Amino acid sequence: MYLYLIRHGIAEDVASTMPAENEVSHQSEIDRDELRSLTKVGRKKIAQVADRLTKLDMTFDLIVTSPLVRAHQTAEILIDKQLSSQLEVSADLKPIGNLPAWLMWWQARTIDRPISTLAIVGHEPNFSQWAELFVFGKVVDRFMLKKGGIIGLKFADDRLAIGTAQLMCLMPPKYLGDGKN
Amino acid sequence: MYLYLIRHGIAEDVASTMPAENEVSHQSEIDRDELRSLTKVGRKKIAQVADRLTKLDMTFDLIVTSPLVRAHQTAEILIDKQLSSQLEVSADLKPIGNLPAWLMWWQARTIDRPISTLAIVGHEPNFSQWAELFVFGKVVDRFMLKKGGIIGLKFADDRLAIGTAQLMCLMPPKYLGDGKN
Repeated sequence: MYLYLIRHGIAEDVASTMPAENEVSHQSEIDRDELRSLTKVGRKKIAQVADRLTKLDMTFDLIVTSPLVRAHQTAEILIDKQLSSQLEVSADLKPIGNLPAWLMWWQARTIDRPISTLAIVGHEPNFSQWAELFVFGKVVDRFMLKKGGIIGLKFADDRLAIGTAQLMCLMPPKYLGDGKN
Repeated sequence: MYLYLIRHGIAEDVASTMPAENEVSHQSEIDRDELRSLTKVGRKKIAQVADRLTKLDMTFDLIVTSPLVRAHQTAEILIDKQLSSQLEVSADLKPIGNLPAWLMWWQARTIDRPISTLAIVGHEPNFSQWAELFVFGKVVDRFMLKKGGIIGLKFADDRLAIGTAQLMCLMPPKYLGDGKN
């Protein structure tokens, strides 16, 4: 089984979705963070990455995304570019999510419905740490995953087991885009 | 300091450089292996990778290559594409080389001549294992480095110390080429 961990693209600052100073708001900082959208540049770069993957004939059986706006918008661009026809949302892919919880969800999701190539769209520092857990069985904080970057893992069978993956690729978006930073 | 480990391109089979059956030869298998050249496809793919790196404005202060023909030819293509103006050969980058020996050579080489971006051209399984040593301090055999693939490491200072690097990228050549496998 192949798993691609894709970090969302460049998003607005938290500040731009914050209420004005004299405005009363019961939104917590976490709620506001969840509403941040991709910037115009962020959308463009994700579209370039998606175009490159399309050119390489890559497709995913399924894309699962964090429900946060910036992640969902990133996943939608991948769907628009026909990298997959299936999009699902998993709350365990939120920035506060953890790998064991998501794996439990995934296990339930895939009973009798095996998936051989999965892409998940989410956040840092989760995704680089999850990749390290899949590869080494522990977090070492050594993988650098930029916004719009992709980590590709290969598992021996159709089970996403911790400490069993091979690292196929870790790609900063600039290598997949148009050659501009 | 940045270190890029680049695996040589696709090379001829050992067989194609072997003496005919009725020919007397004192060449060992290792000697014959050292003479293997890049194939036409191998040259083309390395040139595509080099073109992509050039487009990304990448340059190396120095390229150090294994003396084996397929590695040296790979390094020459990178030089031809102006990714560096300096090429050196290190016998410690041979397939039988080991990281501590090469690091000793490198330390001597760089006394009073610091290098901030270095590319080394060599072989598997050495290079993926060396990258793992730089990142984790031990070999786990989990990094997949294809022919023409690149691993990019970032060190905290200008010293190549084992167990201290961050993994910036691990790129199979197909993502850097023309989109064909």
